[in-house]
Amino acid sequence: MKNIAVLASGRGSNLEAIIKNIEKGTLQANLACVISDNKDARALQITRDHGFKALYLDPGPKKTWLLPEFEENYVKTLQEHNVDLVCLAGFMRIIKKPLLEAFKGRILNIHPALLPSFPGLEVQKKALEYGVRFSGCTVHFVTEDVDAGPIITQAVVPVLDDDTPDTLAARILKEEHRIYTEAINIILSGKYKIEGRRIIRTG
Amino acid sequence: MKNIAVLASGRGSNLEAIIKNIEKGTLQANLACVISDNKDARALQITRDHGFKALYLDPGPKKTWLLPEFEENYVKTLQEHNVDLVCLAGFMRIIKKPLLEAFKGRILNIHPALLPSFPGLEVQKKALEYGVRFSGCTVHFVTEDVDAGPIITQAVVPVLDDDTPDTLAARILKEEHRIYTEAINIILSGKYKIEGRRIIRTG
Repeated sequence: MKNIAVLASGRGSNLEAIIKNIEKGTLQANLACVISDNKDARALQITRDHGFKALYLDPGPKKTWLLPEFEENYVKTLQEHNVDLVCLAGFMRIIKKPLLEAFKGRILNIHPALLPSFPGLEVQKKALEYGVRFSGCTVHFVTEDVDAGPIITQAVVPVLDDDTPDTLAARILKEEHRIYTEAINIILSGKYKIEGRRIIRTG
Repeated sequence: MKNIAVLASGRGSNLEAIIKNIEKGTLQANLACVISDNKDARALQITRDHGFKALYLDPGPKKTWLLPEFEENYVKTLQEHNVDLVCLAGFMRIIKKPLLEAFKGRILNIHPALLPSFPGLEVQKKALEYGVRFSGCTVHFVTEDVDAGPIITQAVVPVLDDDTPDTLAARILKEEHRIYTEAINIILSGKYKIEGRRIIRTG
């Protein structure tokens, strides 16, 4: 069984789905640890409640990224836990060289839109304001360009005329919980090949 | 019954669907005329075969747009036919001021992607190369910005691991035939309101 780690900053809704799917056996992975940059993240509490290892790691003085010395501490911790795959789940910092180089091709993220539409923040608000009739979510490899790495899985939901950012977010979140597990299983199984940016399943 | 005109440059697959839906009565519109910038467009032949009025209008010397005097001739012809709504269907020229001002808010286009993803040309190739798991099509109002006007209808199709631009285009085309009629019916019925860029159905 391969080791995954989850990095989360907030309520940990995707983390919770990952934990439950590991407990049910539908996600074939060992959760080595959950790391947060936020001492008070509900994600850490959920992790402890389920008997997994929860770690707060000092993110340093920057708000949206980690200074190299701080990011290197994240790398060291992940390596000490023999982590094969790093899963970002609402981790609110841009990942830079130290992590990208230590875990090249082994960091996933989930984004609540059908990328390449609506990268970045305030995603549901952007989708509603643009007036799309469908949105969704995307699990992708993390690369230097934010929300632009190769796509593993996506799911689609309708946008309704009376949607608010919150109602749309809730509809998308359900699908996030499903496709993140699907994506992790694909990557850990190794049954895929990469052609350019395309992830082609081989098993 | 309101009058529509279709502008087409090529094989006229969407035009053909529009004609068939008018003949079946599922599209509640009168096809006043079909105009092409290409004398040999199959679209013109289809139009004649079904007993509708087919017109070739000289597009002038430019390849991707119409010089004002030529575009004004398009406007004049559409006005002479009392056209309420102009539907672009594979019309390979960028629409500019003369038509946009004469038919403000009354020009539709269909694009074979889930806008705002993959505007422009070579759409299926771009989608495959990007590695999206879903694509689709979009009917939108035509504005000065290419493929960026408010969205009326969209449809989604899966992208398969063994897709080529042609197989993906064929899957999308089926949906185009359905949602273009749907969009025209919405706009001609008048049962919608526009909030910012959002088209909200009211009936």
